[in-house]
Amino acid sequence: MTKASICTIGDEILIGQIVDTNSSRISRALGDRGIQTVRMVSLPDDRQQIISLLSKELTDSDIVVCTGGLGPTKDDITKDALAELSGSRGYVKSEEQEVIIREFLHARGLDVLPANLQQAMVPDSCKVILNRRGTAPVMAFHFPAERFGHPAALYSLPGVPFEAEAALPDVLEDICAHFPTTDICHRTLMTYGLAESALSALIAPWEDALPSDMHLAYLPNPTTGVRLRLSIYGGKAAEQEKRIEEQIELLKPYLGDNLYALSDTTLEAVIGDLLRGSGKTLSTAESCTGGMIAHLLTTISGSSEYFLGSVVSYAPSVKCKVLGVNPATIESKGIVSSDVAAAMAEGVRRVTGSTYSVATTGWADTYGDEREPAGTVWVGVSGPSGTVTKRFCYHNDRKRNIERFAASALDLLRRYIERDCRSGRQ
Amino acid sequence: MTKASICTIGDEILIGQIVDTNSSRISRALGDRGIQTVRMVSLPDDRQQIISLLSKELTDSDIVVCTGGLGPTKDDITKDALAELSGSRGYVKSEEQEVIIREFLHARGLDVLPANLQQAMVPDSCKVILNRRGTAPVMAFHFPAERFGHPAALYSLPGVPFEAEAALPDVLEDICAHFPTTDICHRTLMTYGLAESALSALIAPWEDALPSDMHLAYLPNPTTGVRLRLSIYGGKAAEQEKRIEEQIELLKPYLGDNLYALSDTTLEAVIGDLLRGSGKTLSTAESCTGGMIAHLLTTISGSSEYFLGSVVSYAPSVKCKVLGVNPATIESKGIVSSDVAAAMAEGVRRVTGSTYSVATTGWADTYGDEREPAGTVWVGVSGPSGTVTKRFCYHNDRKRNIERFAASALDLLRRYIERDCRSGRQ
Repeated sequence: MTKASICTIGDEILIGQIVDTNSSRISRALGDRGIQTVRMVSLPDDRQQIISLLSKELTDSDIVVCTGGLGPTKDDITKDALAELSGSRGYVKSEEQEVIIREFLHARGLDVLPANLQQAMVPDSCKVILNRRGTAPVMAFHFPAERFGHPAALYSLPGVPFEAEAALPDVLEDICAHFPTTDICHRTLMTYGLAESALSALIAPWEDALPSDMHLAYLPNPTTGVRLRLSIYGGKAAEQEKRIEEQIELLKPYLGDNLYALSDTTLEAVIGDLLRGSGKTLSTAESCTGGMIAHLLTTISGSSEYFLGSVVSYAPSVKCKVLGVNPATIESKGIVSSDVAAAMAEGVRRVTGSTYSVATTGWADTYGDEREPAGTVWVGVSGPSGTVTKRFCYHNDRKRNIERFAASALDLLRRYIERDCRSGRQ
Repeated sequence: MTKASICTIGDEILIGQIVDTNSSRISRALGDRGIQTVRMVSLPDDRQQIISLLSKELTDSDIVVCTGGLGPTKDDITKDALAELSGSRGYVKSEEQEVIIREFLHARGLDVLPANLQQAMVPDSCKVILNRRGTAPVMAFHFPAERFGHPAALYSLPGVPFEAEAALPDVLEDICAHFPTTDICHRTLMTYGLAESALSALIAPWEDALPSDMHLAYLPNPTTGVRLRLSIYGGKAAEQEKRIEEQIELLKPYLGDNLYALSDTTLEAVIGDLLRGSGKTLSTAESCTGGMIAHLLTTISGSSEYFLGSVVSYAPSVKCKVLGVNPATIESKGIVSSDVAAAMAEGVRRVTGSTYSVATTGWADTYGDEREPAGTVWVGVSGPSGTVTKRFCYHNDRKRNIERFAASALDLLRRYIERDCRSGRQ
């Protein structure tokens, strides 16, 4: 199996100022082509360390994909280090990248500076893969077998995730032209509503009976629930996929309604799939989640077809004035209560005219009130078959609570719409 | 200088299904104590690879902090690997962690399963540091100098970021009790409004005159703008901080209004600082940003003091009905226009009664209309000194555009409020 190492270059990663999201995206793309990522390494903007560490990774792996350190500023030294590592005898200009640089800066109304043009200069030992979203080109270096004990290749991508992502297809094409690939079958199931340990206990009879070459992983996440990933390395893809399918059919009865998708996705995408083309619409009324549910729903392209809008009623006055919540209800039941969640959900349906709505009212922060502790949220879902509410209780961390509240609300909405769809079919 | 390696254990990282955020948080915490992170490595759930790679890192670094692979499920094998690496002769129960496990599950209404209790069992070669937010305890292993050529320590933390973060202070206390520390001075300045290359050209005279032991890094980010980080390793902290301060004073005139903070922060936090205690309030009206501005504003603890709410008017009907935008304005000027952004900003101020408001209307997606191309947003800011609007134009990527639109809107709002504060003082 072709092996890859992914290296991230930059002091900003090592001192923890930014989180590396490139490695994750690159390893997914490699995995889809049957290339196994065996290591990910982050190293500093230090010429000698770059050279020695990349040499080691090129010895251990067939392919090294590195990102970062290609900016126009003085702290970026990856290009010089790669020139030395690859035995370059000088720099040459990529005319095509220079055209892109000029167009890119012109479109944004920026001046073309010498530092920008310098980015089109690359070591003569590399093959250029154009960067169409930025100024620094991708550099591909191919090494003969005698250099590292086997044929090896190194790809240097820009560190900006948006640019690295756009360059990936061309990089993968070059990789596939030079290295053999193996089939890897992954299937991911999405569940929401059960903690990892409860889920594990629930499906233990099924898990214990899995064939020995199938590997199951649990991936808990506050906004998507627990993902279950089933993998087989090697074998014929079509046959392995059929075997995984059979196992999934055996697993389904254990999971019931907690299973919300048979591929890697999100609650907001599944809700979009349920509503798209149905003529039904959605709105949200958010207090403690502060707009996060609307934000998640509108990350989905085409959401304007079914998402009408949201009222973020952070202040009680907005709950009453815009959503028509009765101040007496807030007074008698508490601002974080089933009645207020229901009134908010019904209010925003009235204001926007949507088919469905979801509302949240809770204490995201370290304080609650005499009725409900911190970490509590009441979710209301309203639609043609009435209004339901549910209480969820989490921890004491603001950002994490906002995420969990939003996910719990989306899940309650998902179950409501699914029930509606099922009863509509009957 | 004490050196650290940070290791992440888990197939889910290597196949790219989740992004590692722990390493970043841990390296920041180590850096604050003058411990330099020299490498970050991610490795698979494979016993032999865990043992050999951690041994190598313990040879190269004084401290290894690893996360992950401690879950209650069968795919997690870090604990067994560490038992072997450390020469453990068996497992012992941490009575204190077992109490936490029972309390933790009880509080969430979950059953105590054998797999949960198994997490309180640790190798007899380790010292337990309690995990108060989850079930798997932190394990600290101290190795004598003869094992790796120098005194070394390995800390194994749970992979769930929320749990790892909570355990960090106790881990750092143990580290500081066993290893020397060095002063590292970092200062971060936040800028918004200039691209990395333009910023670099602007401050070149200052950067070229920096003392040779001061290191400047540019960290561009779509939601916070370009961070500038100035660092000095070694020397006396108080003296180095004074030298950095002097350089910052020299830099300020170059940056002008583009500089929005003298420490690592966000636009939404700076806006919170401007409004907190002022008695002034804020609301948002969001179309293309879909609630993201409200979400960012409400991630700030205490934002309920000044943030009243938002109307996410995704559908034109909500813009007219709730915000009072004149349908004739939408018809004559276009839905993405200066006039509609201004009317939305003024409308949400009227609805919520806030002092300030910010509004967005734009094309986040791949399509625009005959008036404005995809990637365009009009931002409106309204307040006591009138309404201003500004047009921003970005690329063709939905999620990134939503982020950039939200950041551009927050920055226009920040400049407006700052001007208001300055003129109020005069």
